[in-house]
Amino acid sequence: MTYQTPLADFDFLLHRVLKISTQDIPGYADLDPGFTAAILGEAGKLSEQVLAPLNAVGDREGCRLENGVVRTPAGFRAAFDALRDGGWTALDCAPEFGGQGLPSLMHTAINEPFVSANMALNMFLGLTHGAYSAIATHGSAEQKALFLPKLASCQWTGTMNLTEPQCGTDLGLIRTRAEPAADGTWRITGTKIFISAGDHDLAENIIHLVLAKAPGGGEGTKGISLFIVPKFLPDAAGNPGALNAVQALKVEHKMGIHGSPTCQMAYDGATGFLLGDLHKGMRAMFTMMNEARLGVGMQGYAVAEAAYQAARAYALDRRQGRAATGAADPTQPADPLIVHPDIRRMLMDQKSFIEAARAFTFWSANLIDRAHRLGQADADALVSLLIPVLKGFQTDMGFQMTVQAQQIWGGHGYIEDNPMSQFVRDARIAMIYEGANGVQALDLLGRKLPAEGGRAVQAFLALVQTECQAHGPEMDAFTAPLKQASKALAAALGTLMEQGARDPDSALAGSTDLLHLMGHVAFGLMWTRMVAAAQADLAAGAGDAAFLRAKLITGQHYMTRHLPLSALHLARIQSGGETTMALDPQAF
Amino acid sequence: MTYQTPLADFDFLLHRVLKISTQDIPGYADLDPGFTAAILGEAGKLSEQVLAPLNAVGDREGCRLENGVVRTPAGFRAAFDALRDGGWTALDCAPEFGGQGLPSLMHTAINEPFVSANMALNMFLGLTHGAYSAIATHGSAEQKALFLPKLASCQWTGTMNLTEPQCGTDLGLIRTRAEPAADGTWRITGTKIFISAGDHDLAENIIHLVLAKAPGGGEGTKGISLFIVPKFLPDAAGNPGALNAVQALKVEHKMGIHGSPTCQMAYDGATGFLLGDLHKGMRAMFTMMNEARLGVGMQGYAVAEAAYQAARAYALDRRQGRAATGAADPTQPADPLIVHPDIRRMLMDQKSFIEAARAFTFWSANLIDRAHRLGQADADALVSLLIPVLKGFQTDMGFQMTVQAQQIWGGHGYIEDNPMSQFVRDARIAMIYEGANGVQALDLLGRKLPAEGGRAVQAFLALVQTECQAHGPEMDAFTAPLKQASKALAAALGTLMEQGARDPDSALAGSTDLLHLMGHVAFGLMWTRMVAAAQADLAAGAGDAAFLRAKLITGQHYMTRHLPLSALHLARIQSGGETTMALDPQAF
Repeated sequence: MTYQTPLADFDFLLHRVLKISTQDIPGYADLDPGFTAAILGEAGKLSEQVLAPLNAVGDREGCRLENGVVRTPAGFRAAFDALRDGGWTALDCAPEFGGQGLPSLMHTAINEPFVSANMALNMFLGLTHGAYSAIATHGSAEQKALFLPKLASCQWTGTMNLTEPQCGTDLGLIRTRAEPAADGTWRITGTKIFISAGDHDLAENIIHLVLAKAPGGGEGTKGISLFIVPKFLPDAAGNPGALNAVQALKVEHKMGIHGSPTCQMAYDGATGFLLGDLHKGMRAMFTMMNEARLGVGMQGYAVAEAAYQAARAYALDRRQGRAATGAADPTQPADPLIVHPDIRRMLMDQKSFIEAARAFTFWSANLIDRAHRLGQADADALVSLLIPVLKGFQTDMGFQMTVQAQQIWGGHGYIEDNPMSQFVRDARIAMIYEGANGVQALDLLGRKLPAEGGRAVQAFLALVQTECQAHGPEMDAFTAPLKQASKALAAALGTLMEQGARDPDSALAGSTDLLHLMGHVAFGLMWTRMVAAAQADLAAGAGDAAFLRAKLITGQHYMTRHLPLSALHLARIQSGGETTMALDPQAF
Repeated sequence: MTYQTPLADFDFLLHRVLKISTQDIPGYADLDPGFTAAILGEAGKLSEQVLAPLNAVGDREGCRLENGVVRTPAGFRAAFDALRDGGWTALDCAPEFGGQGLPSLMHTAINEPFVSANMALNMFLGLTHGAYSAIATHGSAEQKALFLPKLASCQWTGTMNLTEPQCGTDLGLIRTRAEPAADGTWRITGTKIFISAGDHDLAENIIHLVLAKAPGGGEGTKGISLFIVPKFLPDAAGNPGALNAVQALKVEHKMGIHGSPTCQMAYDGATGFLLGDLHKGMRAMFTMMNEARLGVGMQGYAVAEAAYQAARAYALDRRQGRAATGAADPTQPADPLIVHPDIRRMLMDQKSFIEAARAFTFWSANLIDRAHRLGQADADALVSLLIPVLKGFQTDMGFQMTVQAQQIWGGHGYIEDNPMSQFVRDARIAMIYEGANGVQALDLLGRKLPAEGGRAVQAFLALVQTECQAHGPEMDAFTAPLKQASKALAAALGTLMEQGARDPDSALAGSTDLLHLMGHVAFGLMWTRMVAAAQADLAAGAGDAAFLRAKLITGQHYMTRHLPLSALHLARIQSGGETTMALDPQAF
């Protein structure tokens, strides 16, 4: 695959839409256009030159278990070293642990090209970052000093161990046990499955974060605690020492992300260190969820971006048939695919989705910075509301758009010599892991919406209304579909509240429709902001006029083609759950 | 995978909805319920016991080129023999060539379990059937006598050679040449790609049908002729003789259908026999298109059926979480997935799609019988209109539903040890081959709709209207969404006609939306017929009441959840192609 980092889009979003260097958040003042362009340019170069060429290699070779150790694909080690050596692993980590202390937003922005270029390889980074955050938030001073510098630099990598054969979503069913040892450590015993980067040869040590049940915690999720279980127990000097009683038994053969080893892990009385409070493991997990789900939501559009670029290149190059309005290129026996309206429709659908998803993701990271760096409770509540939408909607739509990009390649898109099949196979997992999208919908409907009497969603609707009114009458026609979609959302909320009181199953039957409806409203909001910024720049004669005009057209495309889906989702929600719940299980 | 043939659904459709044994079509009088149940029961048994167990084997092993010959997966040869020996290859072939002379509808019905159980293996049959039809329609008496008995029995198999590296949809770009030889045969030279079953070890000979340009035919598709090119040239006794100058150079490594060898074929002055008229090859191809596209449209829902069955089994077996309304099974630590409304929503979406698709496919085969066995021109015109819808809509939706079935399996659906990934990877190709779905939309809008001044689509709309009025007032609420959808279709046709006259690109930008809109109306029509039949039986106290009540609920689900999509497609069509066509190609 070839990949080009969308640097102009990054710059537009950061400086013309979000106007980050004017935002009064600690650390943002430094983020002037020159600085962000320099960082993103370097991240892009690494993505294009080092990561992207390894994407197909990782897919083809996969990871394999050899004598108890997992081997990663050829070239992964060197590429990981390049990521490490460039300091890309610790951009937003604390300076006291070797990080650069930049805002979450910058960490988010540099990750996009990494994911587009090589989703599987980037997962080693993402998981390590998650382990860093967990220990940074819940660890003791000693744990922080020991683990955080190594995780910040990715000298050691991290994992998250939740799933077991009998339990996925329902963590109350966990069987892995933790028994206290005399020295204050714990003995962890159990089997974990689907552990990304559970074993590999990219780092000298692997720090497993493991959910397990310690005695006395009670039934269900209440009794769960979180433990740090290093592959090699650190010695007195903090270096990898004795091998712990943890082992990868199997590397799964998956549909995609072959470059990321998904391991079955056996803990056989392994030594673990309690992280955070005993029996409060679930709470510790939840604090990392926004970050992890934002990362997966990014995968949804970042892989679609890579697929879109490949589809665009093919549509400009491949010649079949003639334009309906007469030969576009009479010197050749056929015109390029891009003359055909149905091909353009697909490219515009993809482009208008991806650009809105990028805006939504960057804005959400911006809200996380507001929550973390300014302690703004409303920003925290808003982003908590939006995160399941970001994860579920962007990965659902991202997969659809990646499939559509593959479609443009015709039969050649189905052949593994070309990059399209891998994009589709890789993109598929983002709808499943880190909480399947149905679980995101449940989280949205059952937890996030009712929180604090629905304050966050009311704030979101108010934000949309304010945005619709913030611009002159020349934006009225543009924002009309958004106004309609936000009315549909308000109506849906009313219906769901009424259903929820009367018949919870009926409301739950509409949960995925609600998630998608909110996604469309959020994307309509993003496009309104982007188009307003583009119009302002055009009026001022600033920026690249062709680029800005493309924004107006692409935004209009989203408003006319994607936003009408909100009426469909409302209709489904209003139809209730009757047909969904009526059949006897045996009648299916 | 395990697979259960939906025999009750077949019976309901054939005898309660289509009432085939009362239809006045030659050959239909024999199709009484006992007879069709016996045939379908046997086809089902073969599918469940022989074909389904080989589905994963085919995926895992794939096909490989060894010393110039393609080897199929272990067990495929024996399964193919079982299909051959059972007479399943020739059900609707002419008795004079060894067939059983049954209607197309029965051929269609028995194929569904074959495809559900093993799509890749079934392709050998489907392609051979296509070659049989081509020679039966266009061959000389001599060609028929030589080839048809061998193709009917699948002693020899067939292929279709259209695509070349530089040409897929645009067959005018074909470079394969045919030069006349002194003995009346032709010398074929060129490279063909994506040739399904281009070489293999399942049959003693392979009959390639090859599109090539013969001298004097002019530019573009006009100069194309169709040739019979046997792998082994038949000797005087009609047995495989000398090896022809045709060779498989490569077996493609594909995303799915690994059990079907997709070959790159080299013709190096191979001996060919002209089939049909010189320079009329495209016309000969078109006569087979309805059959081939119906077969691919069936793949769309037949694979979704297999995936649905697996998802249903998992939802009944896998336990996670509790029903929102309280524990459904307090004796166990968790309830089965099927208690969760979002899981049920997905299963109902799949079920209501699959059953309508089956009805639409069987009805279309019924129309083909009317056209062929009764020479009814209106049936021929109607099915020609509907075929691109059947192919495009059913494969688009079938893929979505297969992805949804995979979603129900959570992380386990992403692991290749389980059947779900293969279903998704296999289903994907049906959207691409036999005319990519964008080409189906173009065929519908550009050729089928305007044919004879739009008579066929007017007849279709009249049919829908008649159906909506055919039932008592107790069906009014049920048919209301269909009436609305058919109004949307009528409005869309008006818009497209107006756009087409003014700006063809604008109309073409809506072609896929039109195809989907027509698909929903057709499925609404199918559900109205099925629900009316179920209600009649319930009122008469005939049949299995639980089965019939499930039909009412499933039909209602389609009407409330799927049919509202018609409003979306209309809105998109009415928005025109402005944003689709506005961007400069370089601005994508």
